[in-house]
Amino acid sequence: MEFEQTPRNRVRRIPQRGQYDQATIYAIIDEALICHVAFAVDGQPFVIPTLHARMGDELILHGAKASRLLKHIQAGHPVSVAFTLLDGLVLARSVFHSSMNYRSVVIFGRGRTLEANDEKMAALAVLTEHLAHGRWQEARLPTPQELDATTVVAIAIESASAKLRSGPPNDEAEDYALPVWAGVLPLQLAALPPVPDPQLASGIAAPEYLVHYHR
Amino acid sequence: MEFEQTPRNRVRRIPQRGQYDQATIYAIIDEALICHVAFAVDGQPFVIPTLHARMGDELILHGAKASRLLKHIQAGHPVSVAFTLLDGLVLARSVFHSSMNYRSVVIFGRGRTLEANDEKMAALAVLTEHLAHGRWQEARLPTPQELDATTVVAIAIESASAKLRSGPPNDEAEDYALPVWAGVLPLQLAALPPVPDPQLASGIAAPEYLVHYHR
Repeated sequence: MEFEQTPRNRVRRIPQRGQYDQATIYAIIDEALICHVAFAVDGQPFVIPTLHARMGDELILHGAKASRLLKHIQAGHPVSVAFTLLDGLVLARSVFHSSMNYRSVVIFGRGRTLEANDEKMAALAVLTEHLAHGRWQEARLPTPQELDATTVVAIAIESASAKLRSGPPNDEAEDYALPVWAGVLPLQLAALPPVPDPQLASGIAAPEYLVHYHR
Repeated sequence: MEFEQTPRNRVRRIPQRGQYDQATIYAIIDEALICHVAFAVDGQPFVIPTLHARMGDELILHGAKASRLLKHIQAGHPVSVAFTLLDGLVLARSVFHSSMNYRSVVIFGRGRTLEANDEKMAALAVLTEHLAHGRWQEARLPTPQELDATTVVAIAIESASAKLRSGPPNDEAEDYALPVWAGVLPLQLAALPPVPDPQLASGIAAPEYLVHYHR
């Protein structure tokens, strides 16, 4: 399945880096730990980083009942959400052709509030598993009071595009002779060894999904 | 210096995590490799990831002349820009208190176009050095034609706030007895060894600022 190209989602700068197929887009959303949500109030744009997870064809966000962002989404306003994976610095011989390797997605949509407790619990499970696969089975699950204090919204992914760059720099032909190092500095979001809570009871080992964490 | 707290920049959710001093805010902007810029056109929000650098009290962005984002900024519209550093997953005993450790900033402002070539060159130097400190001295600098093809804008940081979380989870008192591992999984944006361009001439070693890269 491909998302339709419209003025809203079309990749304009360097269009050959644009991709519109659902599989590519969903894989980037799923790998990204967090997203950045943009919304506008009376022409003033705002952008907020937040945890997300994908549940089927919807994007799940959650937070406290008082959250301005969530109230805005609940009121039916449009949002745009970016997911960005940095894969490396691209060091060309020239400043002009220096760049980054990345996989990024921008989606557009409007949200609905999850009202039913079973649907909210399912969404919270997906959010928890998005952070650390295996955690939902181990952690103490939300109480009815905690569930009531939490707003969960699902944003239908109406429109989306991905933009990707990979590989070595592309220099001007005459620059390849310059005595300047060129190549890629790979980057990745890396996990260090888990740090136990100072109040952790003795004899509880860090779970496997944290010791060998990767996205 | 502290940024004034207004309805636009005040941290509303968990206000004790909010900070408004310039030193904290600038340090986060400088450490972040990229930012996410939000803008709105006829009520439709957009968000775009891009490279940035700070030059004094202004945020520098650049791109091709045809960039929609840059044209929008050049027209004097307000933008909001987020900078987000992920420091760890916070695994509480309960799903409800699970969180992230992070240092984030959101700024608000409007941009101006850098017109003079010397000011554009100074801004491109800051952008290049933001990516890799030492690169501007080594790489082939922009030609007049390349400079002309590049738009550079400077956004005055009118308003800003930081939001930070650090440290172990904060669980409910009765949950500390649960046999569930709790703590922090530290995260960092890590660089792997530099990968030379397949077309790199022999005898050019990777520079020190890439071999021991860290932000």
